[in-house]
Amino acid sequence: MKRIAVLTTGGDSPGMNAAIRTVVRYGIYNKLEVWGVFRGWWGLINEELKIFDHRSVSGIVNQGGTILKTARCPEFKTEEGMMRAYNTLKKYNIDGIIIIGGEGSFTAGSEFYKRYKVPCIGISASIDNDVNGIEMTFGVDTALNTALDALDKIRDTATSMERIFVVEVMGKESGFIALNVALAGGCEEVIIPERSYNFEAICHDIVEGNLRGKVSWIIVVAEGAGSAEEIAKKIHEITDLETRAVILGHIQRGGRPTALSRRLAILFAKEAVNCLLEGQTCKAIGLTRGEIVRVDFETAIQKKIWDVEGLYKMVKVLT
Amino acid sequence: MKRIAVLTTGGDSPGMNAAIRTVVRYGIYNKLEVWGVFRGWWGLINEELKIFDHRSVSGIVNQGGTILKTARCPEFKTEEGMMRAYNTLKKYNIDGIIIIGGEGSFTAGSEFYKRYKVPCIGISASIDNDVNGIEMTFGVDTALNTALDALDKIRDTATSMERIFVVEVMGKESGFIALNVALAGGCEEVIIPERSYNFEAICHDIVEGNLRGKVSWIIVVAEGAGSAEEIAKKIHEITDLETRAVILGHIQRGGRPTALSRRLAILFAKEAVNCLLEGQTCKAIGLTRGEIVRVDFETAIQKKIWDVEGLYKMVKVLT
Amino acid sequence: MKRIAVLTTGGDSPGMNAAIRTVVRYGIYNKLEVWGVFRGWWGLINEELKIFDHRSVSGIVNQGGTILKTARCPEFKTEEGMMRAYNTLKKYNIDGIIIIGGEGSFTAGSEFYKRYKVPCIGISASIDNDVNGIEMTFGVDTALNTALDALDKIRDTATSMERIFVVEVMGKESGFIALNVALAGGCEEVIIPERSYNFEAICHDIVEGNLRGKVSWIIVVAEGAGSAEEIAKKIHEITDLETRAVILGHIQRGGRPTALSRRLAILFAKEAVNCLLEGQTCKAIGLTRGEIVRVDFETAIQKKIWDVEGLYKMVKVLT
Amino acid sequence: MKRIAVLTTGGDSPGMNAAIRTVVRYGIYNKLEVWGVFRGWWGLINEELKIFDHRSVSGIVNQGGTILKTARCPEFKTEEGMMRAYNTLKKYNIDGIIIIGGEGSFTAGSEFYKRYKVPCIGISASIDNDVNGIEMTFGVDTALNTALDALDKIRDTATSMERIFVVEVMGKESGFIALNVALAGGCEEVIIPERSYNFEAICHDIVEGNLRGKVSWIIVVAEGAGSAEEIAKKIHEITDLETRAVILGHIQRGGRPTALSRRLAILFAKEAVNCLLEGQTCKAIGLTRGEIVRVDFETAIQKKIWDVEGLYKMVKVLT
Repeated sequence: MKRIAVLTTGGDSPGMNAAIRTVVRYGIYNKLEVWGVFRGWWGLINEELKIFDHRSVSGIVNQGGTILKTARCPEFKTEEGMMRAYNTLKKYNIDGIIIIGGEGSFTAGSEFYKRYKVPCIGISASIDNDVNGIEMTFGVDTALNTALDALDKIRDTATSMERIFVVEVMGKESGFIALNVALAGGCEEVIIPERSYNFEAICHDIVEGNLRGKVSWIIVVAEGAGSAEEIAKKIHEITDLETRAVILGHIQRGGRPTALSRRLAILFAKEAVNCLLEGQTCKAIGLTRGEIVRVDFETAIQKKIWDVEGLYKMVKVLT
Repeated sequence: MKRIAVLTTGGDSPGMNAAIRTVVRYGIYNKLEVWGVFRGWWGLINEELKIFDHRSVSGIVNQGGTILKTARCPEFKTEEGMMRAYNTLKKYNIDGIIIIGGEGSFTAGSEFYKRYKVPCIGISASIDNDVNGIEMTFGVDTALNTALDALDKIRDTATSMERIFVVEVMGKESGFIALNVALAGGCEEVIIPERSYNFEAICHDIVEGNLRGKVSWIIVVAEGAGSAEEIAKKIHEITDLETRAVILGHIQRGGRPTALSRRLAILFAKEAVNCLLEGQTCKAIGLTRGEIVRVDFETAIQKKIWDVEGLYKMVKVLT
Repeated sequence: MKRIAVLTTGGDSPGMNAAIRTVVRYGIYNKLEVWGVFRGWWGLINEELKIFDHRSVSGIVNQGGTILKTARCPEFKTEEGMMRAYNTLKKYNIDGIIIIGGEGSFTAGSEFYKRYKVPCIGISASIDNDVNGIEMTFGVDTALNTALDALDKIRDTATSMERIFVVEVMGKESGFIALNVALAGGCEEVIIPERSYNFEAICHDIVEGNLRGKVSWIIVVAEGAGSAEEIAKKIHEITDLETRAVILGHIQRGGRPTALSRRLAILFAKEAVNCLLEGQTCKAIGLTRGEIVRVDFETAIQKKIWDVEGLYKMVKVLT
Repeated sequence: MKRIAVLTTGGDSPGMNAAIRTVVRYGIYNKLEVWGVFRGWWGLINEELKIFDHRSVSGIVNQGGTILKTARCPEFKTEEGMMRAYNTLKKYNIDGIIIIGGEGSFTAGSEFYKRYKVPCIGISASIDNDVNGIEMTFGVDTALNTALDALDKIRDTATSMERIFVVEVMGKESGFIALNVALAGGCEEVIIPERSYNFEAICHDIVEGNLRGKVSWIIVVAEGAGSAEEIAKKIHEITDLETRAVILGHIQRGGRPTALSRRLAILFAKEAVNCLLEGQTCKAIGLTRGEIVRVDFETAIQKKIWDVEGLYKMVKVLT
């Protein structure tokens, strides 16, 4: 292993720059030559890459986004696309690649390895925290804090104006952000893809609470479990109480990474370089049981199952 | 003037608590008895008020929202409603009222004074900054910083994923927030109610920029000038470039007030108490030309006209 | 177990209010009567306590500090003091106590249990993260982010003015905060109580770096490992380069708890109530290997040993 | 006027990058060639400068610090130094310079103009807000918010532990930051260079308050009016109450500029370019009475006198 490439794929995630910096500097420390590939797989296919030295990654450890850019790349799903990517690697004598991304990126990496046998290690970066076998990806802590900060602000208005708010947070297939911010934000209800919900029961609770004098509610909904707009509209129709929808959207992706997001990004990246040095391939790096772990891509791309009942019950007990 | 009442009306605005605290403590310092009225005009009509002492307002100077709550009150627009409010004031021997709110609140205060001659002073609290004759209300600085912080985060993704973002900020009749955050956030375009825009020209700019290699754009739109969702959709249809909409919504109302919001809230509140002590009525307090000023309600409730061209031109020159 | 008391002791830690809220509400949910004791042990001795209901803890989940207050209490170290505390518990028929605090609080709780056999459970709240057997207390994540945010700001000046900064962070016996913020902040050097350092080598590095053109440095020092003022002075004397000291101090204790601090505070508090319900005593609750764990007070109050070399090496490799 | 230079001098101030970006882009828009000079006057003397184009200032509008760096330059105070600086300007055919800095920078610019008649315009950037004739420089709003955020955090501990805190903020000759954060932070006392204080009276207030049950105090002190450490020590000696000192220090310089700091930086920079285009010289640009103003260097470098009594009285009335 003499020359490696690093790329960021999928949606950006806070801490990607801290991870890139570590791959580059820890790679160089281990006598590797490190190439930065721009716009994910697209850059491999289109030969957009550059050798990185120590100074190429100065001043980025605390920056959101990714200096390598990221892009969707349908072409990489074709045989033609993968072959062109492989040709680039061969041309530059690159012996291994590190992908910083989520579950979709690991699927692509897996397919690519099957065909061309270029060792490939993944760093779990998703803000949805949806990589199977891994308890925590690096970006999710920042997204949680951004969403929580927004909830704290909305709470000011919910309390002052005595209104019901339905707040949509990120999470297409995972209620991780929704459940955690509902718990930490003292929210009254949370709707997530992992569990069905009884809309009538929620409205009943609200009406009953209202009779007892409880006049402000925050209901958090994961984007994959419903639309805040529609839920707000339906609650208003049934309860006749003033209800507002807020969709937090893309603010949850950006921003300076938190201490934990940076720490994990750095330690995952170190482990990824070590994996390549040890001759491994098709491993996703993440945090599980407080340890940095390596999980086979095969496992990582399965649907993640996790127990939501304990946290959900606490949300309800505490409000 | 021996007994005064203070109430918050309309949407909540960061700094309301700092203003309430000042009315109470500066009022007491001036030998006034200060009554806090809950839920705006509704509380006057329904006799929900309480005498406040020095400790009633402890620990709130840095809190968002309003401890007095706020509510819409259609009943106050009726003669019956106003009479009941007046009866409450008479019953409690209250000699003057301070309203913390926006342009709508001053209209109501004005009507009320015409009928019942209870001196009434307004403190400009709107986050839309839409009080005529006043350059700055107290809440707008916090809203600006919240919106700007969100834009900075969105910029991370816009740059990393090379996308177009249309970001909707508050401002039903005013482009104040939109224009200022577009300028301070380095945004490429801004759409506000105060000036018409040429949609084709914007799309043309984007396409032309794209040919030169400019791949990320942020377009800020004031809610009163259009819908981010629709604008994003139309841009995508015309340019075929990936475009996303973000609606910042209610996060712009809450949160800890900034240094400037607190300073203005405090100084406006002091001036409001002084007005009542001097026997004045129907004045809105705000900041103009760097000074705390008193503007007649009659003027304050007119449509605010301000020059947007200078700032708009700078937004365009700088990107 | 019918009646329990909760108190906060030692320095305040962000998340204490989230923990109090959980003890109260989860306690009530489990049919317990919950008493809040003010000012730690002092409140037990002086009979300053109050029954708490669901609403006593409204609106505090996101507040720093502790609504129960905290105080040093040398009197509790005497037999007389402990007896008076016990008498209060007897008088109020309190069957168990939950202490939210750090290692010192668990020592006191342990002594008290030996004498009076009142079950006593501790929730690890220290921002120094110095509870043995526990990888993470609940407050430390907020302290880390506050310190990191300060470092990011100092970096702006260090880079612009090309200066050396020595930044002192919390940690009397632990380099946890220092090491983690140095890693996440991209700092050049870190001095901690757990490892000796070679002052001449550091100055040599600085001078050598300076010759290569590296003109700004940030050296993080844990308060228990040295004084920023003195280290800055010595560096200036030896290298003749402009060097400044910054002592972050108490800002690291306060502030809104982060998502992780709140999550841990809530889950620790739930576990503490469960412990009492199960008839346990003298356990400190914390996070280890990603799990909520119970550690005997005896273990918890030992000096914490943890491996700092791996993280320290990464700090050096990455700069 | 065809070619201008821009430099940053003195301590860095949040918004400097927004100002540089505006000078460059608004300059280019006005057909000027703009040169960036590194490390202030030092860069002029040592010929460290570079032509800047539109892209040279991309992505910096929200960054703290200054991409042009800044440095003290004693050499510029000598005739020799000024001559070398002038020679550089002549060599590069530069017709005018824009200095972003504080009062010291304007003195230097004034001296330089007297000798070499190169038009020179200053942009007021000091975080101390100590430019005479100007009510607000651009960096001070960010410094105020950073200091206020720190005070809010310290308040959590002051209230929880019932302690006295003495907090030292920036301001060598000006109490602007101290007075404003004391007012906005709800602090009990403030000590500033502009007014003498009676130490015995302060201690008397504390003791008397303590007897009434007031147990936490925050005293803000401007660095030019005393040392937090010494004041804390003396208060403890006299009152025997637990007192802690916190020195906020350099965190007040850095960080992302607030909305207002960016707005002012941009508008000041535009005005500075306009001044040069109009053939003016020796003007400091700032905000007064809500307007962008031009003040003669001669006036700007006088000692600033402003009325502190009104704000000071409000601090005392409100606590």
